[in-house]
Amino acid sequence: MFRKLLTFDEAKKKIDDEFKPVFLGEEAVLLEANNRVLNEDVVSTLDIPPFNRSTVDGYAVKAQDTFGSDENKPVTLKVSGAVNIGELSNVKLEKGEAVEIVTGAPIPEGADAVVMVEDTEREDADLKVFVAVTVSENVMKKGSDIKKGSLVLKKGQVLGSSEIGVLAALGLTQIKVLKIPMIAVLSTGAEVTEPGKPLPPGKIYDINAYSISTAVIESGGKPVYFGVVPDDKAALLKALHTAVASSDMVITSGGVSVGPRDYTPQIVDSLGKPGIVVYGIAVKPGKPTTVGFVGNKPIFSLPGHPTSALLIFYLLARPLILRLAGRPATGMKMVRAFAGSRMFSAKGRRTFVMVKLEFDKSCRLIAEPVETGASGAITTLANADGFVEIAENEQFVDVDQEVAVVLFRGSAAKV
Amino acid sequence: MFRKLLTFDEAKKKIDDEFKPVFLGEEAVLLEANNRVLNEDVVSTLDIPPFNRSTVDGYAVKAQDTFGSDENKPVTLKVSGAVNIGELSNVKLEKGEAVEIVTGAPIPEGADAVVMVEDTEREDADLKVFVAVTVSENVMKKGSDIKKGSLVLKKGQVLGSSEIGVLAALGLTQIKVLKIPMIAVLSTGAEVTEPGKPLPPGKIYDINAYSISTAVIESGGKPVYFGVVPDDKAALLKALHTAVASSDMVITSGGVSVGPRDYTPQIVDSLGKPGIVVYGIAVKPGKPTTVGFVGNKPIFSLPGHPTSALLIFYLLARPLILRLAGRPATGMKMVRAFAGSRMFSAKGRRTFVMVKLEFDKSCRLIAEPVETGASGAITTLANADGFVEIAENEQFVDVDQEVAVVLFRGSAAKV
Repeated sequence: MFRKLLTFDEAKKKIDDEFKPVFLGEEAVLLEANNRVLNEDVVSTLDIPPFNRSTVDGYAVKAQDTFGSDENKPVTLKVSGAVNIGELSNVKLEKGEAVEIVTGAPIPEGADAVVMVEDTEREDADLKVFVAVTVSENVMKKGSDIKKGSLVLKKGQVLGSSEIGVLAALGLTQIKVLKIPMIAVLSTGAEVTEPGKPLPPGKIYDINAYSISTAVIESGGKPVYFGVVPDDKAALLKALHTAVASSDMVITSGGVSVGPRDYTPQIVDSLGKPGIVVYGIAVKPGKPTTVGFVGNKPIFSLPGHPTSALLIFYLLARPLILRLAGRPATGMKMVRAFAGSRMFSAKGRRTFVMVKLEFDKSCRLIAEPVETGASGAITTLANADGFVEIAENEQFVDVDQEVAVVLFRGSAAKV
Repeated sequence: MFRKLLTFDEAKKKIDDEFKPVFLGEEAVLLEANNRVLNEDVVSTLDIPPFNRSTVDGYAVKAQDTFGSDENKPVTLKVSGAVNIGELSNVKLEKGEAVEIVTGAPIPEGADAVVMVEDTEREDADLKVFVAVTVSENVMKKGSDIKKGSLVLKKGQVLGSSEIGVLAALGLTQIKVLKIPMIAVLSTGAEVTEPGKPLPPGKIYDINAYSISTAVIESGGKPVYFGVVPDDKAALLKALHTAVASSDMVITSGGVSVGPRDYTPQIVDSLGKPGIVVYGIAVKPGKPTTVGFVGNKPIFSLPGHPTSALLIFYLLARPLILRLAGRPATGMKMVRAFAGSRMFSAKGRRTFVMVKLEFDKSCRLIAEPVETGASGAITTLANADGFVEIAENEQFVDVDQEVAVVLFRGSAAKV
């Protein structure tokens, strides 16, 4: 292992080359499957509807019996019975007969059409029919919606309200969906204390485990919080070992700048092959990021600065979580805006400028860089709606230049 | 109560006039607050950072001691100690001294700047400093990120990764968020059976409770499934009574067409004032929709047809759930597309045409009406990406005309 700064694209390629999303397994779920990824082809075991149904309230008839009838010359049929909704009747319709029927009820044997109640006039058993109906009129035929044996939903589909409606139609209460990737989240750094505890002098509260856990949820993963790991080698080794063994991906933050206590990369490298594959990236912010793999499990070591950590998470870790979850690794939402100020890049590094979005008087969407104040400010996060990317070979983005703003999810409602 | 068809806009206005979103109460949550709505202003009880911090690895100094030094003419300071990260040291820096420091550690008393390690050369206690630093250089000042007493997050904000990061920074583990609205979902109709049970002859499986429950989740509510209510007046009265008493909104489906068993509206009207306020809407599909209120609680009775039920849910019920949840009642996502076929409206009714989206060869997004087959088809739902709205006074949308397609959420990933 040696320290070598990779370009952003090199780092991304290294990670992608190394990562082969494993199959996490599947689980059976009741219909609480909103936003889950289907892991089986669903083939209908039913004809839907399972029988010929009336689509109106009226009278089941033989269409032929109504031929030639109209408003002025109604035919008269004999009402021989009624079929109820929700049960098959043993009524059998003979020529010249009509059977009372409601919407959704099964068409009785012998009938092939339904006359709407509005087109009839009844007196006791005598029914005047003022229209002619054709065969199958007002009938929804058995299997016309879904044919038994047909492929209804495909493996890999994300389930929403319509898809779950279709599963219910088939009477299914258990379907196979992909497991949700478990992402271990842990913080390092002797200065970091868990929220909820008293703050000792010289310490600050842990931010990253919380912001990153939330971002994990947004990305379709389940965060497993390992807490703040004490700043000693044995404790960190133990925590990372457990994290790798018990989860599908590990994300640490803090402890990756070149300081006296920064042994996270060494430990990651010692956990198994291939070890560290990215050791520093030519980006701003986020330069000290390292990425390792133990077998197929990625271990991201993000910087301690909250904004840098969250940004690198979104850029590099989120796509892997989406892929583990079996989801299309779609990019984040983007909007076009105009630069409100000149934004400078860091020489030779892919630069990501946090921006706030606002409409100006002429309703143009303006991206204004967020005042970052001192490095490591937390409020940068809360004030930014997203970021603008500046390529390595560009010096700056000029005022009024059109830019693509990648949105953090929390702010998507705004634009 | 009398049956009168309202226009879509009249119905929407009636509902909005009647509905005053009640305060559902709040609950304290740990930091599992992703996508929840904050119900308190959060004022910082801390300065962040809580002390002056070094932003680099190096040596804390008095800036004045370095004035005039440069690469060729370094000043030499005496290293009098070290401060560790995560603890306040009792080191006090005197004129001519330097104290070893790492990123994030507190600046010791007497120091007012930090020289980066790269700009020094050390031999035992002698430190050559090759640069001049200004006061506060490489120092993040106490309170510079967040000032104690400042308003950090506002009541009503939706919490995402950044906001939760800020809450963690303040050491908070419990914050007040709005309760999630409980939405009772029940199905009516003698022909309807719950999925998972055997399907008796003449019956079909319940779809709507499942598709609508999923749509409730997507809208920020929590569905409470009341199952299929037997088709008798006493059972329905009892179920609706319980549903109203135990939830914030009730959604039924089925049982609202003009058939012999359609007593849902009567029962809703009998539950309390003001009772039914919308009894039929001039829309297609969804005409038999009724909406009532018991006190402030809305009761939607949606049609039995799955597509109609889900459509009317999205159009009329979803905005109320969003408002109950304290969220901006933003519209659904929309894309512009071109009509792939002529789409006809129903005379005098606001018409919603289900469409499927596809890119044509020249990458234009085309909205093609979904073959609905027989009325009440379930597959219409699964095949549609969204819908196109045609106003009451328009006869049709022509081929190639530009249309706005409102997207069902499940399909948002596609475009």
